[in-house]
Amino acid sequence: MYNGCKWETGKNSGRALNPHTYSGLGGAMLLGHYAHTIDDKGRLTLPAKFRPAFAGGIVITLGLDGCLFAFPRAKWEELAARIEALPITNPDARNFARLMFSNADDTEPDRQGRVLLPAYLREHAQLANDVIVTGLNSRIELWNPARWQEVQTLTVERGGLIAEHLAGLGI
Amino acid sequence: MYNGCKWETGKNSGRALNPHTYSGLGGAMLLGHYAHTIDDKGRLTLPAKFRPAFAGGIVITLGLDGCLFAFPRAKWEELAARIEALPITNPDARNFARLMFSNADDTEPDRQGRVLLPAYLREHAQLANDVIVTGLNSRIELWNPARWQEVQTLTVERGGLIAEHLAGLGI
Amino acid sequence: MYNGCKWETGKNSGRALNPHTYSGLGGAMLLGHYAHTIDDKGRLTLPAKFRPAFAGGIVITLGLDGCLFAFPRAKWEELAARIEALPITNPDARNFARLMFSNADDTEPDRQGRVLLPAYLREHAQLANDVIVTGLNSRIELWNPARWQEVQTLTVERGGLIAEHLAGLGI
Amino acid sequence: MYNGCKWETGKNSGRALNPHTYSGLGGAMLLGHYAHTIDDKGRLTLPAKFRPAFAGGIVITLGLDGCLFAFPRAKWEELAARIEALPITNPDARNFARLMFSNADDTEPDRQGRVLLPAYLREHAQLANDVIVTGLNSRIELWNPARWQEVQTLTVERGGLIAEHLAGLGI
Amino acid sequence: MYNGCKWETGKNSGRALNPHTYSGLGGAMLLGHYAHTIDDKGRLTLPAKFRPAFAGGIVITLGLDGCLFAFPRAKWEELAARIEALPITNPDARNFARLMFSNADDTEPDRQGRVLLPAYLREHAQLANDVIVTGLNSRIELWNPARWQEVQTLTVERGGLIAEHLAGLGI
Amino acid sequence: MYNGCKWETGKNSGRALNPHTYSGLGGAMLLGHYAHTIDDKGRLTLPAKFRPAFAGGIVITLGLDGCLFAFPRAKWEELAARIEALPITNPDARNFARLMFSNADDTEPDRQGRVLLPAYLREHAQLANDVIVTGLNSRIELWNPARWQEVQTLTVERGGLIAEHLAGLGI
Amino acid sequence: MYNGCKWETGKNSGRALNPHTYSGLGGAMLLGHYAHTIDDKGRLTLPAKFRPAFAGGIVITLGLDGCLFAFPRAKWEELAARIEALPITNPDARNFARLMFSNADDTEPDRQGRVLLPAYLREHAQLANDVIVTGLNSRIELWNPARWQEVQTLTVERGGLIAEHLAGLGI
Amino acid sequence: MYNGCKWETGKNSGRALNPHTYSGLGGAMLLGHYAHTIDDKGRLTLPAKFRPAFAGGIVITLGLDGCLFAFPRAKWEELAARIEALPITNPDARNFARLMFSNADDTEPDRQGRVLLPAYLREHAQLANDVIVTGLNSRIELWNPARWQEVQTLTVERGGLIAEHLAGLGI
Repeated sequence: MYNGCKWETGKNSGRALNPHTYSGLGGAMLLGHYAHTIDDKGRLTLPAKFRPAFAGGIVITLGLDGCLFAFPRAKWEELAARIEALPITNPDARNFARLMFSNADDTEPDRQGRVLLPAYLREHAQLANDVIVTGLNSRIELWNPARWQEVQTLTVERGGLIAEHLAGLGI
Repeated sequence: MYNGCKWETGKNSGRALNPHTYSGLGGAMLLGHYAHTIDDKGRLTLPAKFRPAFAGGIVITLGLDGCLFAFPRAKWEELAARIEALPITNPDARNFARLMFSNADDTEPDRQGRVLLPAYLREHAQLANDVIVTGLNSRIELWNPARWQEVQTLTVERGGLIAEHLAGLGI
Repeated sequence: MYNGCKWETGKNSGRALNPHTYSGLGGAMLLGHYAHTIDDKGRLTLPAKFRPAFAGGIVITLGLDGCLFAFPRAKWEELAARIEALPITNPDARNFARLMFSNADDTEPDRQGRVLLPAYLREHAQLANDVIVTGLNSRIELWNPARWQEVQTLTVERGGLIAEHLAGLGI
Repeated sequence: MYNGCKWETGKNSGRALNPHTYSGLGGAMLLGHYAHTIDDKGRLTLPAKFRPAFAGGIVITLGLDGCLFAFPRAKWEELAARIEALPITNPDARNFARLMFSNADDTEPDRQGRVLLPAYLREHAQLANDVIVTGLNSRIELWNPARWQEVQTLTVERGGLIAEHLAGLGI
Repeated sequence: MYNGCKWETGKNSGRALNPHTYSGLGGAMLLGHYAHTIDDKGRLTLPAKFRPAFAGGIVITLGLDGCLFAFPRAKWEELAARIEALPITNPDARNFARLMFSNADDTEPDRQGRVLLPAYLREHAQLANDVIVTGLNSRIELWNPARWQEVQTLTVERGGLIAEHLAGLGI
Repeated sequence: MYNGCKWETGKNSGRALNPHTYSGLGGAMLLGHYAHTIDDKGRLTLPAKFRPAFAGGIVITLGLDGCLFAFPRAKWEELAARIEALPITNPDARNFARLMFSNADDTEPDRQGRVLLPAYLREHAQLANDVIVTGLNSRIELWNPARWQEVQTLTVERGGLIAEHLAGLGI
Repeated sequence: MYNGCKWETGKNSGRALNPHTYSGLGGAMLLGHYAHTIDDKGRLTLPAKFRPAFAGGIVITLGLDGCLFAFPRAKWEELAARIEALPITNPDARNFARLMFSNADDTEPDRQGRVLLPAYLREHAQLANDVIVTGLNSRIELWNPARWQEVQTLTVERGGLIAEHLAGLGI
Repeated sequence: MYNGCKWETGKNSGRALNPHTYSGLGGAMLLGHYAHTIDDKGRLTLPAKFRPAFAGGIVITLGLDGCLFAFPRAKWEELAARIEALPITNPDARNFARLMFSNADDTEPDRQGRVLLPAYLREHAQLANDVIVTGLNSRIELWNPARWQEVQTLTVERGGLIAEHLAGLGI
């Protein structure tokens, strides 16, 4: 049913594969997906449309599902407050806080919109040269291309079922 | 019980098959169904009565049930805020956000009321020349005609049962 | 137990079978039942007592239980807002919205209080010449006479049980 | 245990069988029970103490349990608003609304305090000449005498059990 | 465990068997129990300490558990409002309302503090000459002496269990 | 584990066995336990520290667990309001109200701080000469000494379990 | 896992075994544990850091788990209000109130910070010469040293499980 | 999947292994992990980026999962208030309070940012020379290096499952 969504990688790293507009309003409307590359120094250039959202800083940490999460700092602080509110008596809450907080890297893009990805984070997400940068409205995710293709196929094919599981959550 | 609802496609693409009035109030009253066509450049002309609702921009993304969803931008932002509020710890919530956000195309109709449908979206919904454009009050859906006929037959025949399933939802 | 409720149809279409008063206050008190006819052009003349309620427009759509629903436009907008609030992740909600919105006809009675019923709606409700117009307080329903008789018999004979099923709904 | 509650019918139709006072305050305190008769033209004379409550109009409709319900118009409007609020997706709600609204007769007592009972309502409640008019605080009920005797015996003998079933309803 | 609570009846009807004070504050503190008699005309003289509470009128109706309930009119109106609020769709609610409203007698004590008990109410509670008048804080109950003795023994012996059944009711 | 709590009875009736201070603030802090005696006229002298709390009157009634409850009148009125609010449809609520209200004695201590205990209350609690007067913060209890010893042993030995049963009640 | 926490008792009674600071702010921050002794007159000298919290009085009563509870009076009043609010119909609530209220000793430390422990309380907690005084933030506990060691070992070894049991309580 | 996260210990104790910025705003953003050493006097030097958060004092106590918890004093007071609010009737709540309060050490870092760790706390967490200091946003944890490696491996490998367990907690 899903016929794939082609993109090019390599030289044209940074080229938007399909046109997404970006609303600069408060930095909150990160949409679409892009193929980019990581340079030899471990630096990723952010897609041009995403850069304004990270002007206030970027926090990168271990993502779930095998990718990395990267948040505009203000969005990170909202998430941190929610993790903070979890019960200290819950062992999963303590470990989730360790995963997100004790592995977080709080930095800022340079003038060319590049961010250094620490080696332990790149290793975790199996990121070598090619990386898919996806917009999740208020955060971005960094994916190994093969892993992204798996996730895309899964979500398109099982979209109705995925949605139905959320029916009790007010959406 | 349902005797079908005929419409013509082809040359008369854009002709309303049954008369629906459109309330321009805030863009929120998209009713009825229309048969339209997509041109060789992949452009769809919006039904005239629906155009005012999209004056502020249109966000098209992968719909559920095999169609495409297209939202007036203000309505999209309401939905995005609700998806945004889903728990990051829920894997279905993360995947639903990927489906809706990472495949979204944020654009604007041209002066003739035409919108370009990216190839990966047309492929997803199996849209060639003929397309049924249906009003869902605050969004429109784009359907392959055969798929729409299936949905229409189903909802009319099982309307009472469908309604009863919703009885706990305050309607 | 129920001894039937006779009415005449045909020439006297539009004659009230039993005297119901209509409160013009805000258009909200549509009571009783009437036998009317549809003319050759597919037009139904509204019972005189019901006309003031539809001065602001009438929205006719596929009803449940085999009849058509017709709402004063203001009442329709209240219902539309409730359907609008249903979760987009619920497949029954999406299909109920398609049933009600994508089949709706938004029009206005002419000076003689006549409304044109589109063929696809008449076919759905099996309306030929004779039609029973019933008041449901804030909407009217259009019934094939035989279907109405079935519903009337059912609700009178099982009234106590029907009521009891509603006991948890605050009435 | 219950030794019966005798009353006379016939000539003295309208005589109170046991003395009940009626509070004219807002029409809301309809107490006790009376034996009355219906005249040849199908008219019932309301008990004198009940008449002030119906000065603003009376709505008579199919009652539950085999009697007729008659409401002061203001009380009817309160009930109608509650029925109106029931979910349109619930088939019992739709049928209860049809029972109450589509069979309702909205009228006013004449100067002698008489109200005409339409034939289809009299037939439903099996009312010939003799009728028991009972006060239910804010509505009255019209009963076939034999049916009333059955209900009275039942409620007295099983009063404790009936009450206990209501214990969760805040009374 | 309970050694009985003796009282005298007959000539000394109206004498308090054990000293209970009565707070005239708003009529709401009817405590203790008294042995009284009913005269040949069916009249009961209220205990002197209880009379002020009934200065605004008394409503007597079929009580539960085999006694009669008698309320100061203001307290009755509070109860009537709660019965009024019960769902009309609940058959027990309709029958409880019939029990309480359609058998109620709304009257006033005479200057000697006597109230006439209608025959159908005396018969229901098996009241001949002797009657126990008990205070329930905001209403009184009229008991056949043998029935009262049964209730008293029961409540004293099973007091702890009775209390425990109420533990979820906020007391 | 509990090594007993000795006290003397008889002549020294009224002597506090262990020093409890009493806070006269609003009469609400009745703590500790005392051995007292009842005189030949059935009068109990209240412990000196408890007297201020009863300056506004005392209501004595059948206690639960085999003792008598005695309340400062203001505290009684709070309890009475809560009993008053119980559902009249609940048979346990009706019987609990009969237990507490129809057996209550509303009186005042004399100048020597003595209160007369009616014979039917003394008999209920098996109070002869010796009585243990215990403080329950806002009420006192009157105990047959042997029964008190049983309760004290029980609560000390099973204190943890008793507490745990209350864990859902916000304490 | 827990390697013990040594302290000295005897002569140095009153010496803090490990340094705990005490915040004099409102008397609410009683932390750490101390080894003290009880003198021949049954008097305990409070640890110096704890004394300010008890300047307004101290209420000592039967603790749970085999120790004694001692509260600053203001903290006691908060607890008493919560016990007071428990349902009188709950037998565990009545017995818990008896445990806490009828065994309470309300006193004040003397100028040397000594409080007399009544014999029945010392016997209950098996306190001879040596006593461990522990801070519980807003109350202190008095422990037989062997019992304290048991509790300490238990809570350290099973800390994670104990915490997890509390996960639903908002901590 | 997780490829480890190397750090150096020993001489360079105090060197951040990966760059974490620290937000001095209110002391609340303690992120990343560092390898440090404890000196012969049992003193730990806090990582430079963490010191500002502890300017108002530090409370160290027995942590859960085998580490020590150390809180900025203001954060400790928030936690203490939540523990304080737990029901005194719950045995786990009493023991958790004993674990956290009766083992707490309330101190302040010296001018070199060193804090003395009492021997009973070091023993509990098996801390000799090497210690991993991790940021948990609003507290830090002190870990034996081998234990930390275990926790890190566990949380990375089972991150999705850990997160899912928290889905009902509003994150």
